[in-house]
Amino acid sequence: MSRTIALLGSTGSIGTMTLDVVSAHPDQFRVAGLAAGRNTELLLEQIERYRPRLVSVATDEGARMVRERFGSQVEVVIGPQGLVDVATMPEVDIVLTAVVGAAGLLPTLKALEAGKDIALANKETLVAAGHLVTALAKEKGCKILPVDSEHSAIFQCLHTERPVDVEKIIVTASGGSFRDKTREEMAVATVNGALNHPNWSMGAKITVDSATLMNKGLEVIEAHWLFDMPYDRIEVVVHPESIIHSLVEFVDGSVLAQLGEPDMRMPIQYALTYPTRLPGPYRRLNLVEASRLNFRAPDLVRFPCLGYCFDAGRTGGSMPTVLNAANEIANGLFLQEQIGFLDIERVIATVMDRHSVLSHPSLDEVLEADAWARQEALAVAKQS
Amino acid sequence: MSRTIALLGSTGSIGTMTLDVVSAHPDQFRVAGLAAGRNTELLLEQIERYRPRLVSVATDEGARMVRERFGSQVEVVIGPQGLVDVATMPEVDIVLTAVVGAAGLLPTLKALEAGKDIALANKETLVAAGHLVTALAKEKGCKILPVDSEHSAIFQCLHTERPVDVEKIIVTASGGSFRDKTREEMAVATVNGALNHPNWSMGAKITVDSATLMNKGLEVIEAHWLFDMPYDRIEVVVHPESIIHSLVEFVDGSVLAQLGEPDMRMPIQYALTYPTRLPGPYRRLNLVEASRLNFRAPDLVRFPCLGYCFDAGRTGGSMPTVLNAANEIANGLFLQEQIGFLDIERVIATVMDRHSVLSHPSLDEVLEADAWARQEALAVAKQS
Repeated sequence: MSRTIALLGSTGSIGTMTLDVVSAHPDQFRVAGLAAGRNTELLLEQIERYRPRLVSVATDEGARMVRERFGSQVEVVIGPQGLVDVATMPEVDIVLTAVVGAAGLLPTLKALEAGKDIALANKETLVAAGHLVTALAKEKGCKILPVDSEHSAIFQCLHTERPVDVEKIIVTASGGSFRDKTREEMAVATVNGALNHPNWSMGAKITVDSATLMNKGLEVIEAHWLFDMPYDRIEVVVHPESIIHSLVEFVDGSVLAQLGEPDMRMPIQYALTYPTRLPGPYRRLNLVEASRLNFRAPDLVRFPCLGYCFDAGRTGGSMPTVLNAANEIANGLFLQEQIGFLDIERVIATVMDRHSVLSHPSLDEVLEADAWARQEALAVAKQS
Repeated sequence: MSRTIALLGSTGSIGTMTLDVVSAHPDQFRVAGLAAGRNTELLLEQIERYRPRLVSVATDEGARMVRERFGSQVEVVIGPQGLVDVATMPEVDIVLTAVVGAAGLLPTLKALEAGKDIALANKETLVAAGHLVTALAKEKGCKILPVDSEHSAIFQCLHTERPVDVEKIIVTASGGSFRDKTREEMAVATVNGALNHPNWSMGAKITVDSATLMNKGLEVIEAHWLFDMPYDRIEVVVHPESIIHSLVEFVDGSVLAQLGEPDMRMPIQYALTYPTRLPGPYRRLNLVEASRLNFRAPDLVRFPCLGYCFDAGRTGGSMPTVLNAANEIANGLFLQEQIGFLDIERVIATVMDRHSVLSHPSLDEVLEADAWARQEALAVAKQS
């Protein structure tokens, strides 16, 4: 095995952990392309170390800095088209997409059109347009390998079982930063409080999504598309230790689970090495040290966003796109301290209420619904 | 799928649960042969209900009772040869062997010679002669499907993974009836106390083996043979709730586990339906109700028998045969209240100490070692 990788979102949390995995196996992986956002300093270090042929940056200023440092040693592209250029490089076998939000949709579709396998850390792509992405992957014979720890777990539990033998998927949730908070406490929650996740080290957007349980809801929709599973056969259970990453129950009542320390480098590596396995640069699970695993039902009263996701998923069509776009805006406004924590759910619910669902949206209609929901979310947020 | 079954040990705990599974799927299974011990009353009911062609009983008196009731409707055979006759019936696809102790060895070997798949609930067969049984199964292209819940769990976690990717097997142990007892309390333990298992409803011999942790040690040896795994890569962890039935750790640190309510009918059914699955006549796991799973290291000081099993396994040759035979005698004497609970470990250790190991015993040598160890164990027990 030796795989050539394009990495979208290289300077984020998943991106840097992906490069840890690459560094641990220099003979197995080659990084041909990197796409970063605005953290040009870190990107320059990554170019120095991994020597990609092509890099994409968000701004002209970023491009200038790369050219100044590396001259003709690396080709530079810019913006959304730059992401697509990196995602479709001819020499690339697998595209790991760790872009945040629905911005990952177009490069993912273009990568699939170019016949690339996808290591998917960008769940919003499947939430926004799961029907288009999965149909294209099937048509092109490309694999979509999950990077989310939950979906990696489900994938590992499922992968040799017959679909007809699967009864349901059980997605575990840490419960996020506000797992044990009351609604009153959430009403006055700060950004710092929300970013203080008990188990996982992740980017800001997903950490806030964990605090609202939106992240778990988005994962439910992701699981629906990845594993072709009706919403009635997807359950969420709160498991504060994040040791069991998810489970699959079979028709005979047997349940398979995948476990590990909460470290994203394990599912990242598995997506890149599948179907083989390699030792990884992370701590191993010790069950005796872990000592105790707890489980409880999720509280949909304190965390209504999880219910919104099931609703949006069951409604289908353009509704999940709208849910996701409204959440991206509301999450961003909360991170900028422009709205309160509980405004996030209010914005999402209101925008969903106002949406007229298209049942089988084309890509253009998905992008329109996404844009509409963003505008609407901004407008609703201002009415607080 | 429609499978014809021979059931050895039909009136025991595993035997009756196997017939529950058969009753739940009358279109999937046919019982062609039953072999029972001395519980002729129950055997008569089973014959009435399942209408086997051939039954084996332990005694002439049992045979007379069957003939009196069923006349020419069922053929009756007797004793050890009767077991072999049932295990080798031409119409049988799979032999479920739930005989207690090393008595299961010969019928299992004969069934394999006749090309039958084995659903193995008789771990002593692999402990006594794993090298002969696994070699014969391989030669004949027969499957050995584990019925023990731990090995069924491992089998389900492993079955589509590449052996080279497996790092280790982690066998869970409930801890048995005396999990939290001191050595002083064990010294005066009663048979009733030992038979009061916290989670599993099982026969007397295996319940006492659970109390000494011999059962877990025998399972370690069984796992060694079933999964071709060195002893250094088999671990035992105490998990009082018996919800996680065992785990497999892969080279990348990922751990797969199989979970379920502690009910033997699930692994029995899986062994009989493999590789498919069917709904089963037992309760499903509810993780939220289970609420909490605990893990701790086994205590080899309080439970030395577990260590003896690792020792015997590592020594290999005839030593596991001797360990098993000495345990069968000591366990039986304890059940007859002829020796104390802690005498069991003393008998086993002493007989093992006195044994001169044969490194590659033939079947005759295995049977000799077994007979020697039984005599020796009786002699040692009398010296208490």
